[in-house]
Amino acid sequence: MISFASDYIAGAHPEVLEHLIETNLVNTTGYGSDGYCASARDKIAAACGKEVDVQFIVGGTQTNQVVISTMLNGYEGVVAATTGHVSCHEAGAIEYSGHKVLQVPGKEGKVVIPSFEEAIETFYGDENHEHMVFPGMLYISHPTEYGTLYTKQELQKLRAICDKYDMKLYLDGARLGYGLMARDTDVTLKDLAELCDVFYIGGTKVGALCGEALVFTRNNTPKHFVNLIKKRGALLAKGRLLGVQFEALFTNDLYYRIGKHAIDMAEQIKALFKEKGYQMFLDSPTNQQFVVLENAKIAELEKNVVMGFWEKYDETHTVMRFATSWSTTQEDIDELAKLL
Amino acid sequence: MISFASDYIAGAHPEVLEHLIETNLVNTTGYGSDGYCASARDKIAAACGKEVDVQFIVGGTQTNQVVISTMLNGYEGVVAATTGHVSCHEAGAIEYSGHKVLQVPGKEGKVVIPSFEEAIETFYGDENHEHMVFPGMLYISHPTEYGTLYTKQELQKLRAICDKYDMKLYLDGARLGYGLMARDTDVTLKDLAELCDVFYIGGTKVGALCGEALVFTRNNTPKHFVNLIKKRGALLAKGRLLGVQFEALFTNDLYYRIGKHAIDMAEQIKALFKEKGYQMFLDSPTNQQFVVLENAKIAELEKNVVMGFWEKYDETHTVMRFATSWSTTQEDIDELAKLL
Amino acid sequence: MISFASDYIAGAHPEVLEHLIETNLVNTTGYGSDGYCASARDKIAAACGKEVDVQFIVGGTQTNQVVISTMLNGYEGVVAATTGHVSCHEAGAIEYSGHKVLQVPGKEGKVVIPSFEEAIETFYGDENHEHMVFPGMLYISHPTEYGTLYTKQELQKLRAICDKYDMKLYLDGARLGYGLMARDTDVTLKDLAELCDVFYIGGTKVGALCGEALVFTRNNTPKHFVNLIKKRGALLAKGRLLGVQFEALFTNDLYYRIGKHAIDMAEQIKALFKEKGYQMFLDSPTNQQFVVLENAKIAELEKNVVMGFWEKYDETHTVMRFATSWSTTQEDIDELAKLL
Amino acid sequence: MISFASDYIAGAHPEVLEHLIETNLVNTTGYGSDGYCASARDKIAAACGKEVDVQFIVGGTQTNQVVISTMLNGYEGVVAATTGHVSCHEAGAIEYSGHKVLQVPGKEGKVVIPSFEEAIETFYGDENHEHMVFPGMLYISHPTEYGTLYTKQELQKLRAICDKYDMKLYLDGARLGYGLMARDTDVTLKDLAELCDVFYIGGTKVGALCGEALVFTRNNTPKHFVNLIKKRGALLAKGRLLGVQFEALFTNDLYYRIGKHAIDMAEQIKALFKEKGYQMFLDSPTNQQFVVLENAKIAELEKNVVMGFWEKYDETHTVMRFATSWSTTQEDIDELAKLL
Repeated sequence: MISFASDYIAGAHPEVLEHLIETNLVNTTGYGSDGYCASARDKIAAACGKEVDVQFIVGGTQTNQVVISTMLNGYEGVVAATTGHVSCHEAGAIEYSGHKVLQVPGKEGKVVIPSFEEAIETFYGDENHEHMVFPGMLYISHPTEYGTLYTKQELQKLRAICDKYDMKLYLDGARLGYGLMARDTDVTLKDLAELCDVFYIGGTKVGALCGEALVFTRNNTPKHFVNLIKKRGALLAKGRLLGVQFEALFTNDLYYRIGKHAIDMAEQIKALFKEKGYQMFLDSPTNQQFVVLENAKIAELEKNVVMGFWEKYDETHTVMRFATSWSTTQEDIDELAKLL
Repeated sequence: MISFASDYIAGAHPEVLEHLIETNLVNTTGYGSDGYCASARDKIAAACGKEVDVQFIVGGTQTNQVVISTMLNGYEGVVAATTGHVSCHEAGAIEYSGHKVLQVPGKEGKVVIPSFEEAIETFYGDENHEHMVFPGMLYISHPTEYGTLYTKQELQKLRAICDKYDMKLYLDGARLGYGLMARDTDVTLKDLAELCDVFYIGGTKVGALCGEALVFTRNNTPKHFVNLIKKRGALLAKGRLLGVQFEALFTNDLYYRIGKHAIDMAEQIKALFKEKGYQMFLDSPTNQQFVVLENAKIAELEKNVVMGFWEKYDETHTVMRFATSWSTTQEDIDELAKLL
Repeated sequence: MISFASDYIAGAHPEVLEHLIETNLVNTTGYGSDGYCASARDKIAAACGKEVDVQFIVGGTQTNQVVISTMLNGYEGVVAATTGHVSCHEAGAIEYSGHKVLQVPGKEGKVVIPSFEEAIETFYGDENHEHMVFPGMLYISHPTEYGTLYTKQELQKLRAICDKYDMKLYLDGARLGYGLMARDTDVTLKDLAELCDVFYIGGTKVGALCGEALVFTRNNTPKHFVNLIKKRGALLAKGRLLGVQFEALFTNDLYYRIGKHAIDMAEQIKALFKEKGYQMFLDSPTNQQFVVLENAKIAELEKNVVMGFWEKYDETHTVMRFATSWSTTQEDIDELAKLL
Repeated sequence: MISFASDYIAGAHPEVLEHLIETNLVNTTGYGSDGYCASARDKIAAACGKEVDVQFIVGGTQTNQVVISTMLNGYEGVVAATTGHVSCHEAGAIEYSGHKVLQVPGKEGKVVIPSFEEAIETFYGDENHEHMVFPGMLYISHPTEYGTLYTKQELQKLRAICDKYDMKLYLDGARLGYGLMARDTDVTLKDLAELCDVFYIGGTKVGALCGEALVFTRNNTPKHFVNLIKKRGALLAKGRLLGVQFEALFTNDLYYRIGKHAIDMAEQIKALFKEKGYQMFLDSPTNQQFVVLENAKIAELEKNVVMGFWEKYDETHTVMRFATSWSTTQEDIDELAKLL
């Protein structure tokens, strides 16, 4: 059985695991105050090419919840595409923190820029807007939930709109490694550190057992942030677990190597499907590929392949997701080729 | 340098780490639906000697927050000793969830039973109690933050009071392994599964990298609990990380062996201090030992030993905490002996 | 200067005010436990034609917040039209209580029934719905924010969908008096008491200084509801203020007389505009009339008339709202006629 | 039957009611933007003797909840006496907003100043305080729940401690009118405007149907405060209801006259009880008098007098509260005198 079910089907990348093993018996202080966290922070700052503050948090929804609820003012909500993770797949975690998710149209996972700008203009043009939720932050994911990417120019445009309306720009990088290594992208980590107020570098889906590295780029970490993290139940006692893993991910370009490997695997999958005449649901440049398959074909494949259900296409077809990661092997791809 | 700073200074117990290594490349589903979690649940249920539901959560404060906020009714708060972890050391995580911590007097970390009972009686005797926070749950820790333990009879008494006033009994077992293996305790895991509505078996402080096993004993898991966990940002994508570790902890009695080892080390420390004529701050039967030390002695010791500051005793003395765990070695103790 | 700015531009209907005056010096207990509240409850129950529980709350947004946050389970959100008051005009009050507003398409203020049903079906058909917010309640307003009304058949259809998916049906009756007395409606108060789980009879916009009467129709008042109201800051010390007013409103059919008067005034306004050839923005059968006016005409009218801005229509036209209430007079209408 | 049950047993003071009647048909805008609110704001500012911002809110618990939750930072809680209204009689409204009430010892309702100072020092002296709730505000009531008053010197001392530790000073003036007119007080409204960051002038218990005037003294109203009020469900549509009442209360010294009258009545009650040899529970200089009565005497009195149960004193005695207000008459006192 081969699996393309998701990018979190296996444990840790061997180099990450190795670092956990070799540091296991070292005594450290807790709550992220240890030397591994410090070193990982330095390495990430170096990769960002500027002074930034880095905080490690266990999971993605948790990171979104912590960032959004600590950076918004009380009268503000967060704007996101209707398909954004915070809009629909986090069990209401943002609302649980008391803030509204203001939905704007999305296309293939990306915020539709003119619609976003129009929504903000409409808000400020409404005489009753003091009775409405203020747009305080824009949330985007990169890669998006559909595998798509923003261009640098698009990010600059979003930044400009955020500047105009005094909004923060927050980028969810749960799968950032795959986005940075996509073949035609012109967006680098340094660009993100320049353009975003805050973003996170995903670990869980890019080689770690768990963990996301939250990057504040403008000397804008909320005051007493450790307290705020703990208040939300999100402070890890053995913070080293995150520091050690991110130290490994940012040593010898591991984060980028993982990204590149998964992209190579994904491009092979895409080519395979195209070659065999299958229809891609959309053109994804990253590690998630969406294919329109006949239901009968799916039933047949499922004897040997684990895939992800995405959505119903029509009465006889379904969109299936094939995700790659550091743990995808050439053997997996070859096996898939035989089955198509 | 030897360290007794806390029980979470090192990584994972070698047997836990080994299990993470050997399962690293196995593909699993996410969010706690994998086979390792299932197996760990079965092993814990077996250890509890009855049908229970087990859920894994990353950290202790998080577990307290999730349990308390999902099990209380809207008009209820949780009763705890003034020294209880939820009362004072969780950055207001319980209040963040909208519920009050109703403080009652504690003695050496334990809820003073008559004071507790009187507080509840006073509440229901107050004609205005409809305008006050109802006591809906009793929170206790075992071992307490001061290393002390309840007796079985005390737990039965608390259970009876809870039953009388329709309150839930919740036990925070962050250090449960050390409590279960204390030399004179008469409280077993099976007793807890009988007496508590819900409790957790601490992993973070007892051999795991992270993770707590939450045990619902009365077919009383809140409906759609996975959703409620996720809403609080506490659902781990690679849930296997917790399942694998607890599977190891409950295989070949590892959890108990860790407990026994730390108790042996702690008893040696206690004996050492007593032998040398030092005053113990209180009589702790578990892995945390509290000693009254002269400030000059502390300064001297700190050249070679990491200890925990507990509280000021008088102008020239301070209470210091010495914590043991699975990672404490006989060499650490011998070294300490030389320094005293 | 005449005003059609809103239905809350004046104080209390004279009969309501009179009852406040005549009861002013009577001593009562507080928090809604007085005899006026009891009497008002009885009168409302009689009007509903069945045993119901009635609770009085000061304002509309507050009532929505209290009802929704106390009746939903933790994993649930409330479904509403994108134009629903709770969706966009309550400053995020629902999200402040920790619950998501799940938006479905609206048409002229009404939930589009097939879209609503499809949204619920899609939710339950989604394999990942455990990670999403469950639809636990449907919120509708009647009249809607656009003055429109549901038919009895539509309400029955919504009730059936709610029953099918175990959802509660909640009706916001901020302007209910105007809805009940609309000329062609077939929906009565008794129908609402039959079809809704909970609804409120608006006082603020229908003759009271403040106050909404919340009606629980199925023996389903949340336990310790007074405590839950107080916890949300919404419990009025002199609860009599609400009881006295609703006692007046439900004596000698005052609530209906107010409704009828405002409808008569609104129908005259509608006729006036149509007669003069103006375009109605939509066909409203209740006390709010929406007219498309040339911007130049608006500027001219505003010298003598206060109206409400509704929305931009095109470059040279704007939609303006004319609201009537118990305080609208025939003289106001005659004056408006002269100005058109 | 005469009643000393509370200070909110009757409607509005006749002058307040008269102003509601005479303004009833005037058309105004909503949400506190009307001319009556503006005028009341000016009058209160004049009484405060400095530029202040005034906001009107319906009730006391609501005001506490709004102030505390909008003025605290996320990592802060509010310090209050264990007997403070926010500590025990608001159904957990403060915790509902996500903030902890940090209790310090009280004596006869007043914060014990050295205990308060020590608690703050202990907090900042604790090496783990980053994991605890920061003291961000001091809440005091004046008069307290026990009728007692702070001296000007005590308030200055509290102010100095707040300044030292960067805390806000908030005074709950639910019964402020009675405090300002107590016979030996040296605290004036101008003092409060000088010493507090924010305080409220109670209306509900001092002559209004409802309403509290919240005074921000340091150009420190939270940004978009109307939005924040609405988000908490606390924004009154017909804000005029509060403006009109406070305009009356601050016209012709009505607020002070009400205070003086109630104090005169209370002093007579106190004298009566003392004269007859009864024991006062404590020495209250304001409108609430607490008397230790034999249970048999209480049973006898209750045939003709409504009093408030305060607390059990011993097996045969109970502390009863006698509250006066603007509505207490000389006839009430004379009748009471006959019954003692």
